[in-house]
Amino acid sequence: MELSCVFSRRAEHLPSLRAPVYSNQEVEHRAELFDVLLICSGSAEELPQDTPRLARFCNVVDSFDTHEEIPSHFARVDQNAQKSNRLALISAGWDPGLFSLCRLLFGAVFPNGDLCTLWGRGVSQGHSDAIRRVNGVLDARQYTVPDEEALEQFRQGKALPTSQELHRRECYVVAQAGADLARIEREIKEMPHYFAPYRTEVHFVSKEVLERNHSALSHGGRVIAKEEKMGLELSMQTASNPDLTARLLLIFARAVHRMHQKGVCGCITPFDVPLRFLLEKDGFEML
Amino acid sequence: MELSCVFSRRAEHLPSLRAPVYSNQEVEHRAELFDVLLICSGSAEELPQDTPRLARFCNVVDSFDTHEEIPSHFARVDQNAQKSNRLALISAGWDPGLFSLCRLLFGAVFPNGDLCTLWGRGVSQGHSDAIRRVNGVLDARQYTVPDEEALEQFRQGKALPTSQELHRRECYVVAQAGADLARIEREIKEMPHYFAPYRTEVHFVSKEVLERNHSALSHGGRVIAKEEKMGLELSMQTASNPDLTARLLLIFARAVHRMHQKGVCGCITPFDVPLRFLLEKDGFEML
Repeated sequence: MELSCVFSRRAEHLPSLRAPVYSNQEVEHRAELFDVLLICSGSAEELPQDTPRLARFCNVVDSFDTHEEIPSHFARVDQNAQKSNRLALISAGWDPGLFSLCRLLFGAVFPNGDLCTLWGRGVSQGHSDAIRRVNGVLDARQYTVPDEEALEQFRQGKALPTSQELHRRECYVVAQAGADLARIEREIKEMPHYFAPYRTEVHFVSKEVLERNHSALSHGGRVIAKEEKMGLELSMQTASNPDLTARLLLIFARAVHRMHQKGVCGCITPFDVPLRFLLEKDGFEML
Repeated sequence: MELSCVFSRRAEHLPSLRAPVYSNQEVEHRAELFDVLLICSGSAEELPQDTPRLARFCNVVDSFDTHEEIPSHFARVDQNAQKSNRLALISAGWDPGLFSLCRLLFGAVFPNGDLCTLWGRGVSQGHSDAIRRVNGVLDARQYTVPDEEALEQFRQGKALPTSQELHRRECYVVAQAGADLARIEREIKEMPHYFAPYRTEVHFVSKEVLERNHSALSHGGRVIAKEEKMGLELSMQTASNPDLTARLLLIFARAVHRMHQKGVCGCITPFDVPLRFLLEKDGFEML
């Protein structure tokens, strides 16, 4: 696998990379340079436009992470990729993506069991990104914080908690001078999917405090399944959330290229990928 | 999914089941009764014969678990299944099987990382079965015991331990009256793959002690991967090892039927299965 080129909105401002950098307007005309395009824009407003558009010109992979909107995103991407005979794999980050594969596996093994996912404590790029799009916001970090007490009660046999009971959301926001803070707080807390159903705290801080205290990129998460006297649990820790997401995009990009070579077109998700396509070799030693 | 019939060496001795029971000699003539045959015999001596033979007549799934011999088992099964246009999925238990899928995923995400698998504490059916085949042995249980100290050193940054450093094997054996115990102990400890490379203890006990103290079917295991400041870990606990293996055989049987309907023939492993085939529905809600 090699990096052949980078497309960016800020091509002229990027530091020197190990490959040529082109304007993001040039993908259409340079699609012969690469096998798969990794789309690294945000789920809130960009990917719903970018992925269907780019699937008209090349094979793509994205990490679209608004769980509730995956079916409609899938349908839009599929329509364009089918027409162009390209292959697009969506939702290929760590969640959705790696965690989804574990949820599916665990859910298949425990069809009558309980399944829950915990995230954090860590900064969610998607949620931070969503806050930054609120009018009057200069910068923001959103921590997803698991409720260890609710988890412990679940482990001890209590009924399956909702995602809202298992997490709260801590937001640190830098506002423009003179912005209406009450309106910003309200718009964040009422944002559908991202914040509305959760216990959300909004803290306004200065640019300096945000950079000094809230620059860590670490994250973690767990997928927990149980049924009667059996249990399965995945746990993940990373010092760099974007690094881990990039790794997932990369291995699914390998699968996209291989599956497209075998004639698969349209939109797929990680659930459609035979996992051996993620490895360079046949993986027999992993059995 | 429904149970259509059971084939057994002991058809006349089985209690009443929810489906007709036939002699295992009748599979060939009754292959039109079912879509997939779940082969539940042992890896040590039976599956290397049974799976290639039965793949000549029907779609099959097995839980072949001698890791080192998977490539040769695969080749034999593939040859017969290709000829008969059937589909055979091998090594579909929890390890190999579920754990293999996690090893592959974790290994793909951490290509320069360390990966280790721990089993136990629990009775290994394959290893107990292998002991029972030693001449002079009436019954046996083998506990696989993880070395928590070696694991802790690995977590704290020590070099990757071997499977032999991470586990020891505790064997409880009922011998025939008058059998040569020293020979039995030597044959167990020298058995290739199963025992030879491990710290193995052999304890001779009475039939009564075996039944009273060593009838628990619980098992567990972990797959642990780390690279620099990232880590992934799967952990599994089950009160019934055979129940968990049966669940895996069942969900992979569903995948075999679906993939065969799409024209896939020959031998495959869990690595070849798009995971959505394990679920009854499309699984979008698992993303």
